[in-house]
Amino acid sequence: MSSANTLGRVDSLQRLRDRMTELADLAALDMLATWDQLVMMPAGGAEARAHQLAALARLAHERAMGEEIGEWLAALDDARLDDLDRDIVRVARREWERARRVPAELAAERSRAHAEGQESWRRARANDDFAAFAPALQRNVELAREYGECLAEGGSRPYQELLAEYDFGLETEALRELFGALVVALPPLAQQARAHSPRRELAVPVDVQHTAVRNTLRLVGVDEQGWRLDVAPHPFTAWIGPSDTRLTTRYNDGNLESLLSSLHEYGHGLYERQIDPTLVRTNLGRGTSMSIHESQSKLWENHVARSPAFADVLAFELEGAGFPVAPAELHATLTGVEPSLIRVSADPLTYPLHIVLRFELELALIEGELAVVDLPAAWRDGMRRLLGVEVPSDALGCLQDIHWGAGSFGYFPSYALGCLIAAQLWEAMESELGPREEELRRGEVGPIQAWLAERVHRHGRRLDTMPLITQATGRSLGIEPFLRYVAPLAGRAP
Amino acid sequence: MSSANTLGRVDSLQRLRDRMTELADLAALDMLATWDQLVMMPAGGAEARAHQLAALARLAHERAMGEEIGEWLAALDDARLDDLDRDIVRVARREWERARRVPAELAAERSRAHAEGQESWRRARANDDFAAFAPALQRNVELAREYGECLAEGGSRPYQELLAEYDFGLETEALRELFGALVVALPPLAQQARAHSPRRELAVPVDVQHTAVRNTLRLVGVDEQGWRLDVAPHPFTAWIGPSDTRLTTRYNDGNLESLLSSLHEYGHGLYERQIDPTLVRTNLGRGTSMSIHESQSKLWENHVARSPAFADVLAFELEGAGFPVAPAELHATLTGVEPSLIRVSADPLTYPLHIVLRFELELALIEGELAVVDLPAAWRDGMRRLLGVEVPSDALGCLQDIHWGAGSFGYFPSYALGCLIAAQLWEAMESELGPREEELRRGEVGPIQAWLAERVHRHGRRLDTMPLITQATGRSLGIEPFLRYVAPLAGRAP
Repeated sequence: MSSANTLGRVDSLQRLRDRMTELADLAALDMLATWDQLVMMPAGGAEARAHQLAALARLAHERAMGEEIGEWLAALDDARLDDLDRDIVRVARREWERARRVPAELAAERSRAHAEGQESWRRARANDDFAAFAPALQRNVELAREYGECLAEGGSRPYQELLAEYDFGLETEALRELFGALVVALPPLAQQARAHSPRRELAVPVDVQHTAVRNTLRLVGVDEQGWRLDVAPHPFTAWIGPSDTRLTTRYNDGNLESLLSSLHEYGHGLYERQIDPTLVRTNLGRGTSMSIHESQSKLWENHVARSPAFADVLAFELEGAGFPVAPAELHATLTGVEPSLIRVSADPLTYPLHIVLRFELELALIEGELAVVDLPAAWRDGMRRLLGVEVPSDALGCLQDIHWGAGSFGYFPSYALGCLIAAQLWEAMESELGPREEELRRGEVGPIQAWLAERVHRHGRRLDTMPLITQATGRSLGIEPFLRYVAPLAGRAP
Repeated sequence: MSSANTLGRVDSLQRLRDRMTELADLAALDMLATWDQLVMMPAGGAEARAHQLAALARLAHERAMGEEIGEWLAALDDARLDDLDRDIVRVARREWERARRVPAELAAERSRAHAEGQESWRRARANDDFAAFAPALQRNVELAREYGECLAEGGSRPYQELLAEYDFGLETEALRELFGALVVALPPLAQQARAHSPRRELAVPVDVQHTAVRNTLRLVGVDEQGWRLDVAPHPFTAWIGPSDTRLTTRYNDGNLESLLSSLHEYGHGLYERQIDPTLVRTNLGRGTSMSIHESQSKLWENHVARSPAFADVLAFELEGAGFPVAPAELHATLTGVEPSLIRVSADPLTYPLHIVLRFELELALIEGELAVVDLPAAWRDGMRRLLGVEVPSDALGCLQDIHWGAGSFGYFPSYALGCLIAAQLWEAMESELGPREEELRRGEVGPIQAWLAERVHRHGRRLDTMPLITQATGRSLGIEPFLRYVAPLAGRAP
C-alpha cells in the first residue's frame, strides 16, 4: 500500500465529512427559514420565501447527489475507519445510494405534484369536496408508488420504501402485527374508558395558560439562553443548533392544549439537544427517525404531562397564574376519553386507532387494493369499526389531514409508534430508576432527562429505530406497555 | 450564423440569469439568518449560526466565481441582448471579473483577519487599549491594500478599488473635493448653530415612544402584511423579499432616537421595496450602492422626520400616546446642534465632519501616509480641527467604530455622501413637486414615495451612484443643497 493511497483515503474521508457538515448546515438554514415562515414572516413574504426554500433545497439536493460522493465512498476502506467514521460512511452510503435510484424527472414531478396536491387539498377541505381532490390524490398515489418502486429496485414492496424515508429499517409486516394487535385490544378499552374517564371541559383564560406554560417549561429546563417559545397555528419545533431550540404552541380559551402541546414539543427539542456533541454537524447529528422523535414528544406529553403526579405541578402553576384547580380534576381533564372524529384532538387512548386507520388505507392505496374514489367510504367504514363513530362529512373524515395531499405516504405510522415506544421506554426507565411518581410530583425531571440522554438521545442516527428500542429497553417493540399505560383510564389495573 | 449558435447563446443567457436568481435567493437567506441572529436568536445559537452563515457564504462565493460563468459570458453577444439583459450581463461580467482577480488565499486570509480584528477591537474598546488593537488593525490595513491592488491590476490606486466595493464608480478625487469643501463650510456653521440651535433633552417614556413609532410608521405605509418592526441594539433593516421588510429600532428613555432611527430605517426599506418588479431576483434587484442607500435613509431622517412641518405629525402621535409636546419644541429637540465625540449620536449638521475625518485617516492608512501607531494622535488632531472637541480617550476616539476592525475600508464615505445626496434629491423633488411643507404637516408622503420610486428606487442597480444622481437631479453631486438644508440651524437663510 502506497502512502499516496493512504492519503487518498484520508482525503476522501475528510471530503465526505466536510460535505456532510455542509449539508447539516444547509438543513439548519432550511429549518430556520421554515420556522421564520410559520412564526415571524409577514404574509407578504410568502412568494419570496417559497423561492428561497426552493433554492436551498435544489442546492442541498445537488450537493447530496454529486458523483464525487460516489468517488469518495469508493476510495474508502471501511475496515480502516474508526467506529464513528464507519457509521458516518455507512449512513452516507445508504442515503447516497437511495437518492441515486430516483430519476431526476421523477423527483421534480413529485415536488410539483406535492405542491399542487396541498393546494388542491386545501380547497377541497374548505368546500368539503372530495371529488375535487381525487385527481391530485390519484397522482400522488401513483407517484409515491413509482418512487417506492425505484427505491425497492425489485426487492421489497414499494410501501416498505416509503416507510424507510421516515423510519429506515421499519418493516410493513411488523406494523401490520403491531397495529393488528391494537385493533383487537383498544376498541373495547375505549368503550369502557369513555364511561370511566369521560371527557371534561376546563375553560382556562389564555393569559393564565401563557404564564403556566412558561413556568412549567422553565421547570424542565427551558431557559432564554438556548430556547424560544412562540405561537404557531400548528405547533412544531425547530432545532436550529444544539443550543438553539424553538418551541411553538397555541392557546385556546376552551382547553389546555397549550400545556400538553408545549411539553410535547419540548420532547422533540430535548431529543435534538441531547445528541452526543461529537455527532453535531455530521450526518448522524439528528434524531434517528420520525417514530423515535414522536416517542420523545409522546413521552413528555403522555407520561409526564398526563401523569397524576405531574398534575400537582401543573395545578400549582395554574394556581400561581391565578386559576386554582384541584390536581385530580386537572388530571381528569387532561386524560378524558371520547372516541371522536379528529386525529389531532384525540384523547391518549384512542389516538393510535386514528393512525391505524390511516395506515390500513394508505397501504391499500399504494398496493392498489383501494381505489382513490373509494377512499371516503373506506374511511367511514374504518371509523365505525375502530372508533364506533359516524363520519358526517369528508371534511371531518378523509380530508382532515394534509399528509396525503402533500404526498407523505408512510409518515402516519410514526405517530402511533411514538405512543408505543414512549410507553415501552417509560417502563424500562421506571424499572431501572424506580417509579417516577414522587419526583414528578415535585417537578423533578433531571433523572428522566439523563436516562433519555444515555439510552436514546446521544446516539443520534447511529442506531435505527428498532435496534435502538431493543438496546434501550432490552426487548423488541410491543403494545403491552402502551396497553398498561391506558388501562387505568378504562378503570382496569395497569 | 447557425441556429445551434443561437441556441447556445440563448442557453448561456438563461443559465446566467438562473445563476443570478440563485445568488439573489442565497443573499436573501443570508439576510434572514443575519436578521434572526441579531433580533430573535437565543444567545446559545451563536456558534451554530456562525457555521451556517459561513456555509452559505462559501456556497454563494463558489457559485458566483465558477468558471462556467466565464463561459456563459464569453458565449454571449451583447449587441443582441435587450436593454434589461444587457444590464444584467454588464453587471454580472463586472462582478465576475473583479472577483476573479482576488486569489482565493487572500480572500480566505481577509475573512479570518476580519473576524479576529473584530474580536480584537471589541476587547480593545472595552479596555480603552489601542495598543492591543494595533497589530490586528495593521494586518487589516495591509490586507485591504493588497486586496485593492489586486482589483486595480496596476490601474487605479488601491483605495479607489476599496470604495468600489461599496460604491462602484466613485472616485477618490471626487470625494476629496466634496469633503474638502465641507471642511471649509461646516465648522463655522457648527459653531454658530451650537448657539442658535442648542442641544435639548426631552425625556419621553419608552412605552409612549413605542406607540408613537408604530403609529408614525403606519402613517407612511408600514403595515403588518409586509413589514415587521423589532428592537435591536444597533438598528438596521433587512429586506428578505420585495414584500417582506424588517425594520429595527431601539428605545431609550432619555431621547427620541427611536423616532429618528425608525424613519431612517424605513428609508432603507422603502428603497428596496420600490425597485422595479422586473428586476426582482436578478443581479440588479437591490439598492445600487451604499451611498444611495444611505441617502434614502437620510432623506427620511433629515428631510422628513427633522422637518418643522413633520414635527406636527410627530407631536400629534406623541400626544396621542400620552405625551403632549409643542411641535416647535419637538423640532428643536430633534435638530439641536452640539459638536461631540461620537459619530452615531451626532447632530445632522456636524455628522458629515465625523465622516470626513474617517475618510482622511483611512485614505492615509491605505496609501501608507499614516502609520497605525500614529492613528490616535491623528484622530485627536482631526477632532480638534474639524469639530473643536478634545478627545479624552481612544474608546471615545478612534476605537468607537467597528468598521476598521472588521476590515471595512472605503465604507465610511457613504454615510456623508448619503447626507449630501439626500439634500440634493430633496431639492430636486421640491423644485418639481413644489414645497412639501403643507403635505408633510398632514403626514402625506405619497408624492414623496412616488417621486423616489420613479427617480431613484425603480432603477435598482441599473444605474451606478453618480449617473443616478445626475439623472435624478439634473446635475452632478455638490454640497450646496446640504449647506442650504443646515443653514437654518445656524440661523442663516437656506
